[in-house]
Amino acid sequence: MERITSLQNNRIKNIVKLGKAKERKAQNLFILEGARELTLALSAGYIVDSVFICPDLFDKTDYPQVLNSIKEDIKYEVSEQVFEKIAYREGSDGLITLAKPKSHTLADLKPKDNPFIIILEAVEKPGNLGAILRSADAAQVDAVIICDPLTDIYNPNAIRSGVGCTFTVPTAVCSSDEALMWLKANNIKSFAAELQASNWYHEENYTQPSAIVMGTEADGLTPFWLNNADRRIKIPMRGKIDSLNVSVSTAVITFEAMRQRGF
Amino acid sequence: MERITSLQNNRIKNIVKLGKAKERKAQNLFILEGARELTLALSAGYIVDSVFICPDLFDKTDYPQVLNSIKEDIKYEVSEQVFEKIAYREGSDGLITLAKPKSHTLADLKPKDNPFIIILEAVEKPGNLGAILRSADAAQVDAVIICDPLTDIYNPNAIRSGVGCTFTVPTAVCSSDEALMWLKANNIKSFAAELQASNWYHEENYTQPSAIVMGTEADGLTPFWLNNADRRIKIPMRGKIDSLNVSVSTAVITFEAMRQRGF
Repeated sequence: MERITSLQNNRIKNIVKLGKAKERKAQNLFILEGARELTLALSAGYIVDSVFICPDLFDKTDYPQVLNSIKEDIKYEVSEQVFEKIAYREGSDGLITLAKPKSHTLADLKPKDNPFIIILEAVEKPGNLGAILRSADAAQVDAVIICDPLTDIYNPNAIRSGVGCTFTVPTAVCSSDEALMWLKANNIKSFAAELQASNWYHEENYTQPSAIVMGTEADGLTPFWLNNADRRIKIPMRGKIDSLNVSVSTAVITFEAMRQRGF
Repeated sequence: MERITSLQNNRIKNIVKLGKAKERKAQNLFILEGARELTLALSAGYIVDSVFICPDLFDKTDYPQVLNSIKEDIKYEVSEQVFEKIAYREGSDGLITLAKPKSHTLADLKPKDNPFIIILEAVEKPGNLGAILRSADAAQVDAVIICDPLTDIYNPNAIRSGVGCTFTVPTAVCSSDEALMWLKANNIKSFAAELQASNWYHEENYTQPSAIVMGTEADGLTPFWLNNADRRIKIPMRGKIDSLNVSVSTAVITFEAMRQRGF
């Protein structure tokens, strides 16, 4: 296994570059950190380009088997100093992988009968996207559809906060127009969440094919979804601050839907 | 109004110091950023020590009246360069305040009849604490009790992610022993959340005086709460990753309780 100890090594400099969305697109590669994340990405059929291992840290991982299926000629050992330069997380387990993105079109989605879908319009903060994917995994929603995003699902911070759910949750990226047509084609009823809606979220019926549509933290949903969704719903907020974190409100509505569906 | 343009100014150097919990304790002061946050802190009766205003940024605030009640001799105008040095947030509205912490003992809590309480054991990440306070405000819980915390409620990042709810939600800080005694003294039933519990959270009855007890992201609750709580509950997690963000799971259970209580 080649050992890299120089911060000037071209592979290391390239990993730093891949922090930028433009570079990820140009190179068709993204960074994923952690042995659990790699395990999940491999199960999901992602193609690995290269793996960078910091032996001292990797010794403490809970997933020592993860490297067994990785070919020797794409493994690189790196010094702790080099690893620090390329790591995103605190308490990392010493593994960074470059892998190829998958296709995320609506045509790739294969929803089950009576699906439940989360739609995010113009999500901006990678941490929120990751947190929502984490809830989506726990609730086993059929898909998360990301419309007109201002971040991408392969942003390293979205992957980090998603703790691997980036690879377990079916996702599609498209325009809001396309998402709406897809909902109609699949007879899925849409529920747009907004602060001024007249219907309480917990008085709606989600046992039919349903999609909740969530806007940005700063501005909520655009008129497109407010006008085109079948229902407009809100969460009762009785405090002094009229706002919930978007990952929290998404989870509150999603778990109410799952409760109605008997989990 | 005194104008500060030097990064070496003692007041500015002191604000940077107050980023550390030890200094906050020693000086009995904390930092709060933002005009909305200051508005809420003033409504809650917090005593202001000094206010630092960056005029160019403050011109764009949604809360221009907030400075009316602040005495002239504790207002300082700062240059943009100085403000950048002391600001925690992106998109700040040009206002940083030093204020005195309040008392947060159990004796300060005045729960209403049939209260609903959130108890956090050993919460570590300021961002999670802030997010939970935000949900607690929206759900109008009677109190958040923070046991044996590894962060403090006046951590600047906890205040930032709490978007002002630090000042609107009744909070107490104490040991787990004290919290348990307080629950018993007030006839409040406790529900400890854990991954291995045998009771589903949504099949419990929260219409009586209730407290949910939440552990850390990394390790969950300690045996103290698992053994002493009245009930042990779990959220169904059906995905590949058996974990929800603690602020998400707290909100999911809290809003289910509020739903049962008719909001």
